[in-house]
Amino acid sequence: MKQVILTGDRPTGRLHVGHYVGSLKERVKLQNSGDYDEVYIMIADAQALTDNAEHPEKVRQNIIQVALDYLACGIDPAKSTIFIQSMVPELTELTFYYMNLVTVARVQRNPTVKAEIQMRNFEASIPVGFFCYPISQAADITAFRATHVPVGEDQMPMIEQCKEIVHKFNTVYGETLTDPKIVLPSNKACLRLPGIDGKAKMSKSLGNCIYLSDEEADVKKKIMSMFTDPNHLRVQDPGRVEGNPVFIYLEAFCKDEYFPEFLPEYQNLEELEDHYRRGGLGDVKVKKFLNNVMQAELGPIRARRKEWEQRIPDVMDILKEGSRVAEAKAAQTLNDVKASMRINYFDSDQSDMYQK
Amino acid sequence: MKQVILTGDRPTGRLHVGHYVGSLKERVKLQNSGDYDEVYIMIADAQALTDNAEHPEKVRQNIIQVALDYLACGIDPAKSTIFIQSMVPELTELTFYYMNLVTVARVQRNPTVKAEIQMRNFEASIPVGFFCYPISQAADITAFRATHVPVGEDQMPMIEQCKEIVHKFNTVYGETLTDPKIVLPSNKACLRLPGIDGKAKMSKSLGNCIYLSDEEADVKKKIMSMFTDPNHLRVQDPGRVEGNPVFIYLEAFCKDEYFPEFLPEYQNLEELEDHYRRGGLGDVKVKKFLNNVMQAELGPIRARRKEWEQRIPDVMDILKEGSRVAEAKAAQTLNDVKASMRINYFDSDQSDMYQK
Repeated sequence: MKQVILTGDRPTGRLHVGHYVGSLKERVKLQNSGDYDEVYIMIADAQALTDNAEHPEKVRQNIIQVALDYLACGIDPAKSTIFIQSMVPELTELTFYYMNLVTVARVQRNPTVKAEIQMRNFEASIPVGFFCYPISQAADITAFRATHVPVGEDQMPMIEQCKEIVHKFNTVYGETLTDPKIVLPSNKACLRLPGIDGKAKMSKSLGNCIYLSDEEADVKKKIMSMFTDPNHLRVQDPGRVEGNPVFIYLEAFCKDEYFPEFLPEYQNLEELEDHYRRGGLGDVKVKKFLNNVMQAELGPIRARRKEWEQRIPDVMDILKEGSRVAEAKAAQTLNDVKASMRINYFDSDQSDMYQK
Repeated sequence: MKQVILTGDRPTGRLHVGHYVGSLKERVKLQNSGDYDEVYIMIADAQALTDNAEHPEKVRQNIIQVALDYLACGIDPAKSTIFIQSMVPELTELTFYYMNLVTVARVQRNPTVKAEIQMRNFEASIPVGFFCYPISQAADITAFRATHVPVGEDQMPMIEQCKEIVHKFNTVYGETLTDPKIVLPSNKACLRLPGIDGKAKMSKSLGNCIYLSDEEADVKKKIMSMFTDPNHLRVQDPGRVEGNPVFIYLEAFCKDEYFPEFLPEYQNLEELEDHYRRGGLGDVKVKKFLNNVMQAELGPIRARRKEWEQRIPDVMDILKEGSRVAEAKAAQTLNDVKASMRINYFDSDQSDMYQK
């Protein structure tokens, strides 16, 4: 069986370093591993519209930004199919038929849906489209016959719901859909980066993100203003490493080889952390080191992004071609689905359609 | 503005005389009135699947039956476009985007949805697809830019919900969709025929329907077994006309010209009813008259049906061509919808899609 990856992002803003360590970096690794026959990366505009229906321009204006972030990180259109969700209408058709296989009560019990509804303060006014997004996501996954779906741990209930739909469909209509596996990030520390203010979630509205498209000076400014251990007032005080955003970022980005270059007094992150815990290590010094590390990591990404920014028509062509390829694959699956449901009336043996 | 009708039926069984007096007869009248530029008649297989997902063969096997009933009643493919819902995938795309404009709470308040859920004993296990059918219906109506939707009074909340979606869409994305009007049956007495057992609703499972495809002898047998006034035990007893199925059917089907032919002792239905109320008129006599009336009404329908039954490939061609025409129209509307939402990325001016 072909090994196929489906993953993606909602185009509601530029991507930030949280996306990078949480998923983009991993995707590039998976893309280049040679283990997968097909990799589909979806810019989920239709899903973004489920809770941005009144601000379609926000979604529209971020599609190219997200594509640029992908290309900047090393997603290679020769190896991965980057496409725009709404350009593959077969996904809405699959969603429509899968909706018959899931009860309202089951979606209501989905922990991710519950959490997302709470996060958005929707309460009684959840748009139906947003409520149904686990079903739409099952359509996305199965349309490409994804065998592997790399997502964060918080998305596990979504994959569970997808698997239920697959099983239900295959039971009712006969073996048709491919059962996907979840792929969790290999580096557990990277599951979720906090904001630079120490808040658990990076968000555009909180202004606490470092974006992949940020200029060098902006990255430095943000790092130097980062929240650290609030009780680490004087250099000589002992400091906390756990929950300290500066160290969480170091755990996500730092490699041993950065020490000789940027901070030769230490061999590795462990030594640096020990010193911070003991006291005698100032935040400014650690932040300067983090800045050097992050500039080293983000520099090549930023440079590639700038190159692609000069080639927006090429980016559009990549999206157009990717969407064409994605649609062809989804259309095949939809054909199989309709054949199994026997709603392919005009293309099927019609002898059972009429009995006197 | 073009005057356009959209109407249809779920193909879960053959159509019966309740469908005929409640809608089919009216549709033929509207079709032939010359008042409408386009008439679309939808065989709603996709909607039928929302609560028959596990019995797709039931839906599949009734598509041609419903088409035969249409043709038998006088729906003319030269004047009306008969099509199969699932053959117009644009409808699922419209549904998908409309789902963002309606809250879960709003659908839950829809009286028709409430009643239908209760009728089907769904309670907590409503399929999401069934729950969303008012939204899907709004897609059906607006896809064809229907100005007029002939439905029973019980469907008014569905049309209300559709109008809300139209207003919301046009407010958020700019004037795009056509606001539909409900058309109630002209003969109020015909709104809903009871079953032959006197139960309010005709249903296949209760076995209380007279089908348009029933043979003459079956129709007679069903009429002679009809429930009447249970207190009208002897011929001389006074009888009740109100709520008496035999008289409700007569009100729906009888014309004055039938009296000279079949029951010359009376001039019209009023005289017959008066006699029944006074006492002295036996049920068998009234039922025999009703049988004559209904055979006269159903005879030509049955004959036309038999003709079409010999031409099933032609019926398939009508459905295929109708679906082609319907899809072309729906695709136009979908294009307009996507242009208004500005999710027609590749076909639009792209200059606003990227800002540095």
